[in-house]
Order: sequence, then C-alpha cells, then structure tokens
Amino acid sequence: MTIGNSTICAISTPPGVGGIATARISGPDAISIVSKIWKGADLAGATTHTAHLGTILDSELKPLDQGVATIYRAPKSFTGEDTVEITVHGSRYVQRELINSLITSGAKIAQPGEFTRRAFLSHKINLAEAEAIADIISSSSRAAHRIAITQLRGGFTRKLAQLRDKLLQLASLIELELDFSEEDVTFASRRQLVETAREIDIEVNRLKNSFKTGVAIKDGIPVAIAGKTNAGKSSLLNAILEDDRAIVSDIHGTTRDIVEENIEIGNYMFRLMDTAGIRETDDKIEQIGIERSLNAIRKAQLILTVIDSTDSIDTGFINTLATNAAENPNDPTIIFIFNKTDLAPEAAKTLEEAIETLLPSQVSRHYVAISATDRTNLSSLLDIMTNIIDEQANPEQSQENILITNARHLQILTEASQSTARLLQSINDNLSGELIAQDIRQTISILGEITGDISSQEILNNIFQRFCIGK
Amino acid sequence: MTIGNSTICAISTPPGVGGIATARISGPDAISIVSKIWKGADLAGATTHTAHLGTILDSELKPLDQGVATIYRAPKSFTGEDTVEITVHGSRYVQRELINSLITSGAKIAQPGEFTRRAFLSHKINLAEAEAIADIISSSSRAAHRIAITQLRGGFTRKLAQLRDKLLQLASLIELELDFSEEDVTFASRRQLVETAREIDIEVNRLKNSFKTGVAIKDGIPVAIAGKTNAGKSSLLNAILEDDRAIVSDIHGTTRDIVEENIEIGNYMFRLMDTAGIRETDDKIEQIGIERSLNAIRKAQLILTVIDSTDSIDTGFINTLATNAAENPNDPTIIFIFNKTDLAPEAAKTLEEAIETLLPSQVSRHYVAISATDRTNLSSLLDIMTNIIDEQANPEQSQENILITNARHLQILTEASQSTARLLQSINDNLSGELIAQDIRQTISILGEITGDISSQEILNNIFQRFCIGK
Repeated sequence: MTIGNSTICAISTPPGVGGIATARISGPDAISIVSKIWKGADLAGATTHTAHLGTILDSELKPLDQGVATIYRAPKSFTGEDTVEITVHGSRYVQRELINSLITSGAKIAQPGEFTRRAFLSHKINLAEAEAIADIISSSSRAAHRIAITQLRGGFTRKLAQLRDKLLQLASLIELELDFSEEDVTFASRRQLVETAREIDIEVNRLKNSFKTGVAIKDGIPVAIAGKTNAGKSSLLNAILEDDRAIVSDIHGTTRDIVEENIEIGNYMFRLMDTAGIRETDDKIEQIGIERSLNAIRKAQLILTVIDSTDSIDTGFINTLATNAAENPNDPTIIFIFNKTDLAPEAAKTLEEAIETLLPSQVSRHYVAISATDRTNLSSLLDIMTNIIDEQANPEQSQENILITNARHLQILTEASQSTARLLQSINDNLSGELIAQDIRQTISILGEITGDISSQEILNNIFQRFCIGK
Repeated sequence: MTIGNSTICAISTPPGVGGIATARISGPDAISIVSKIWKGADLAGATTHTAHLGTILDSELKPLDQGVATIYRAPKSFTGEDTVEITVHGSRYVQRELINSLITSGAKIAQPGEFTRRAFLSHKINLAEAEAIADIISSSSRAAHRIAITQLRGGFTRKLAQLRDKLLQLASLIELELDFSEEDVTFASRRQLVETAREIDIEVNRLKNSFKTGVAIKDGIPVAIAGKTNAGKSSLLNAILEDDRAIVSDIHGTTRDIVEENIEIGNYMFRLMDTAGIRETDDKIEQIGIERSLNAIRKAQLILTVIDSTDSIDTGFINTLATNAAENPNDPTIIFIFNKTDLAPEAAKTLEEAIETLLPSQVSRHYVAISATDRTNLSSLLDIMTNIIDEQANPEQSQENILITNARHLQILTEASQSTARLLQSINDNLSGELIAQDIRQTISILGEITGDISSQEILNNIFQRFCIGK
C-alpha cells in the first residue's frame, strides 16, 4: 500500500452558508498549489502549525477573498502529508470558487473519506480509529459520542492489544510446555492455559455481545409504547416529549405503520414508537394496527406498557404482551406504568401483584405509578429508562467500558469467538502444543483485522466510502 | 464606544454535519477559557498565529474530541482581541457540547455579527467593510461577489476618501479666497471651485445611481420573457435553462402569478420570469395573466420579447410592449428574439424593419434570430444579455468600478447628492465663503456615515444584526 502522490482538496466544513468555511489541501504539492493562488506571507518558507493572513485568488487569479492559510508540514498533520487549511468567508460562491481555483492550480477533488484514508495509510491512525471518526461525526447523543470518542482515543485499540498480549502469553505457555514436555510441568501450565484461554474467550464474547447495546445507543434505543386502548399511551408520549425539549426529529416509519419520535433523555437517544391500542376486535384495519403494535413489542429494547390504574388487569392482554416479548431477541425490559394514579392512588400495589401472578419469572420488569396528565412521577419513569440502559451498557460499572457499534467489528469478533471456542476445545481435548499454537495465531490474525493490521483493498474501500467528502 | 469586556463564542462554520467545524472564541479571557477545557500544549504561552493539537473537554471535563486550537493574540486577530479558533469533528453533538463547555468555562454566546462588530469597534475594519462581509457571505454569482470583495478590500472606502480629499481641496480653495478676498484672485478660484464641486457632484450621483444595477446584480437581474401566445416563450425558457446546468432554484412567486427561475449566466445571476402570452381576449382569467405579464415588463431590467419568425409583426402587440416598457423606471433593454429561424431563415431582416417603424427611438433594443428547439444561435442571445449588464455595471470600462448594493449607502448618498446640489447652488449664487464651507462640512459629514466615522448606536445595531451568528 502506498500513499497517493496526488494532492487532494475539499471543503471540510458542513455544506451551506456560514461565517467561515475551511478547505483542506493535502499531498506533496499542497503548499506549492496554495502558493499559486495566494498573495501574502511566503507559505513555502512557513513553519509547521502556523497561520497566515492573506488574499486568496480565484481561478482567473483575481482576488476571491481574504482568508487564513494554516500550514501543517509532513508528518505532523492529520494525513501525515503536507497539509494546508484555508479558511475563507463561508459563502457558497467563495467555497465553490476556492475549490475551482485549487483544481485549476493542480489539486484533485478528494473522494469521500480520502483524508482519513491517507491518515490510515500514513500510520497516523489505525482502522478502528478511522472508523471512529465517521461515528463521531454522525453521533447524536452523549452516550453514542462517548463510544466513538473512546474508540478514536484508542480505548478499543488498547483493549484489542490486551487481548493480543494475552494470546501471546498463551503462546509462551505453550512454548514452555513444549520445552519442558518431558518434565512434570504439564499439569500446572495446562491449568493456567485453560484459565487464560477462558479469559480471552469471555472478553471476545463480551465485546461481540456489546454490539446489540452499542448499536441501540448509536442509532437510538427502540422503545415501544404499548397498552390497551385508552390507557393513556398518547398522553404519556406527549408528557415525555414535552418534558425534554431536545426532540430531534419526527421520523415517519418507512412502512407507514408506526410514528417514531426521537428524544434525548440523559445520555441516550430513545426512539419512541407509538403503537395502536391492543384489544380484541373484528375491525380488519384495527387488527393490522394491533399486529404492528405486537411487532414493535417483538423488536424494542424497552417496552413501556401503559396500564389504566382505574381498570383491573386484563389477563389476555398481559399474556399477549408476555408472549410477544418472549419472542423479542433483545431480551427487552418491560416497564409497567400505572397511569392515572391521581384517580386511583392506591391501585398500584394490587395491580402489580396481579401482573406478578401472570408474568413468567424470566421477564425483566419494572413498575412505576405516574399521572401523564399532571406529570406526577414522570421523572422516576425517565430515571428507570436511563438506568436500565446504563446497566446494559456497562454491567460491571467499569471505567473503560468498550461497546462495539460497527457491523464489520461484529463480524470479525464473531469469527474470533469461533476461533477462541476452537482454542478452548483444543486445550480441553489435550491436543498438541503445535495445534493449539495454530488456533492462537489464527485468533490474533482475525482480531488484527479490526485495527487494519491485516486488511484487503476491498475492505478499505468499504470503510472509507462511508465518509463525507472533506474528511 | 468601548469594546465589550466579555469573551464571546460561537460556531462560525455553516450549521449541520461535516468533516470539521470551527468555534471562535474572542475576548480578553479567550485563551484562559479555552485552557480550562483543553489538554495538550500550553496555550497561555503560545505565540500568536500558531496551531496546537490537543484534547477538548466537555462541560464535565471528560474528553469530547481531539482537535486543533489556533491562537491569535490581540491586536493581530480579526476582532482585534485575543482569539482562539477551535477546530473539532463536525458532528452536531460535538459542536453543541463544545459551545456548552465554553459557556460553562465563562464564555458568552455571541450575538449575530458580534465578531464583526468587535472588529469594527477595534478599528480593524470600517463600517462599509463590515457590511461587505455580510454581502460576501450571501453572494451567489461572480459579479455579486466581486462587488462585495471590492468593498471589503477597501475599494469603496478609497473612493469615499477621494471624495473627501476633493471636498477638503474645495475647502482650501475657499480659505484661499477668504485670505485674499481683498485682492484679484476671486474669479480664478471661483472657476476652479465650480469645477471641483461639479466633479464631486457627478461622482456622488454616479455612486447613487449605481444602486439600481448593483442591487440587480446582488439579488439577480430581473428578466421578463414576453411575447404573443405560441411564439415559443416556454421553448426559449427551456432552452436557456438546459444550456446552463447551474439552475439555482425554482422560486414560485409569492403572489402566485409568475414562476421565476434563477440561472447563472457568465458572471451574473438572472431571474427569468416566465409570463403569459399577450393577446386580445375576453377570457377573464387570461386577462389577469396578461396584466401580470405587462407588470413584469414594467419591472424587468431585460425584456426578452419572443417573436414567431413565421408570423408577421402585430402592431398592437409592439405598441403594448413599448407603452409598458416606457413605464418601467429601470430603462429596460428589449431584446427581440426572432424564434423559429429554422422555419423562416430570411424573415429576420423584414421583421426588424417593421419593428423599427413602430418603436420609439429612446427604447434600447437588440435583435437576434434563434431557434429555441434546435438551439441555433442561443449563445448569441446569452452573450447579448451579459454584454448589456456588463455595459450597465461598468459603462466606462474602468478598472476599479464601484457599485453600491446597500440601501443604507443609497440613503446616505441621496442625502449627500442633495448636499452637493446645495453646494453647487451656493457657489453659483456667489454666497460667502463661510456659507459654502458649511455645505462642504455637511457633505463630508454625511459621507462619513458610510464608513462609520459618524454613526449612532442604533445604526450599528441595524447593521450587525443582519449577520449570522459566528461572524
């Protein structure tokens, strides 16, 4: 793999009009190309990391704008190449003409992600860190951002390095065994072998399994609001949305069935799915709505089940809820919300006991009594919601908690977990050290794909074309 | 007027998601505030105009992003104050949290235009230059941009300085007359007095009158496409729009009457107004459409009149056209377009002669034969259009051609032209030197408002609130 000899350019700031906009130029000729369209301080002689005021010329070499050129000299730049950042006034016209002018002077327009790709090819960042940049740019909540920034700052890389160290440690234990195979050290080292291999296997699987929560945090945690008709589902939705002003968007489901509302609560983005009330009906249209409601229960991570406190528990409804929740691969948590608590303040205890007699024990459940109309206890509900996700995201309350959010990483970790399973099997089957060493090598090699120690051109293309141009 | 003691911050790049985004922090505490949320090189000791890589912390002092802080020390910054520009990854989340973090550390969110206002208050730029920045950011064509960049680079300011110099020269001539009033120098200096005052008056009026063209260039030059029914107006519109891919927008008139298409041709933005065909009709609805068509003729700067070459000239139509064009305060140019030239290649000469017998001599007119369907000679039409505007924008083909585009400048120049008219009158009436000197002082004072030498707080507020935040 070699770094392109061309010099690339693009507007790196968001598209549109603003006070200022920045073009990035990277490559061996970055400074000389910019110098052609520049009147001001001598850029060719400029020290790295210095900013210079000057006049930028258009492709006819007439004054386009006054701006600042900041010089970054290889290898002390993001890409590892000579880089100039030109900051101009953020008009559409100036931005367009600046790029025209740079192209006329010999730069090429950058492909999506090409700057980050060059940073990877220059060994400034590894592949997982490059992917984290795309995640940072698209993250919309604190938790999603924290996952990405941890990945960019090398948290994930360090975790993988620890796994690699443990695998190498395993390899040295095998070596020890081979060296001393005639002596009486076999038993002791085998036990240590099994222990270390188990640790690796557990950690690989923990990472693999973090994908479900990681993706939910990244894309928004799916929440179904379920209940019988007239239990107060819409009032609840309205109460939650009014409580937090950070409503991000109204996304109308592509399947025209469920209206989603995205809302940031605490560190998380929740995707609230408003569903039809569940009841026995002969109405064909209503049946379709109910089927969609059940489908939401089978997909969500949290199920907010709204119960009318002035009503008694409907056994059929609870059974339907439990059956569909059991089919949900996300192991959802059901939060039973006793609504209209202002009208029946004593009902909660009886209702909870009635539900407990009906609900299978393996279902995770919480109970809270609220009044959606006067917002009584609404904050308790929101706390329960965020606490559940906190717990799922970081069950060990660890300082450096790594969640994976990338399908490519999931695929690699799935292969790695098969490989560690084989490794454990080989050790248990008392296979020869050479065979065990082969399993270890394979696991190291698979995990290496995440950071790009081992990667093909095709994988690289897939990763970098997801970027926006200018990054 | 004093510069605010507060330190302000804002995202200066366009809103939205991009590779990178930049926050600007300006004020006495800019560097110390940023240092609170910064892990990396010591910013307090950093030289001006240097860029530093580091970690930016959020309001909980946890890592938010890796980014670059560029230091500009007073007075060598845009605002004239200590300024830091922080460039981070361009996610909505990071941008929002960066501003939160800066505010937590003691910065205030900037008002629209506050950075530029501070630049003005620090005497880094004058008022006309500050206004030019807003124009640069909103300019959408080369010509609109050139007007704004000339203004920002001080072209307009130099022109005003020349006028001021001439007025001061006039003042010294008056002084000369006062000193030697007993002697025989009166006649000679009076003649020179009149000459200089005339020059000033002509230049002030030229600037004042450039507003019409300046605004047309800034906002798009209004072009009415007129003609009888079925002459080929729609084909012409389609032909022009297809020719140039830079269609900017489809603006549906707020009055629901005329559909406008904005298109960039050469250096200019043209606003093409498609109108109803003109003919005698009893149809009430059609009559309304025709009245709107005539209204467009009375407002446009260019009137593209489409004539069917296979038809004879309709005297009534030409008269209607001429009458309405005569009511147009813009002195519009009519371009007669003989369409369908492929069907009647010899007709143009005869049609042109027929029109010449009908059209009043003072109407500016051009002729061109085209075929809209096969695009014959379409480029000649586009050349005629841009040449007419070139001529209007810069009749003297001068190197430094100043056009005004700002209503505030028009108002000041209108007052200044009244003042120079009074000055000329005073000289012609042989009034005393003291009275003439007063007229001169008043003219200088009026013109001084443009660059802000004389300006009230209210005027400043009006100017800077038009800016986007971050500028």
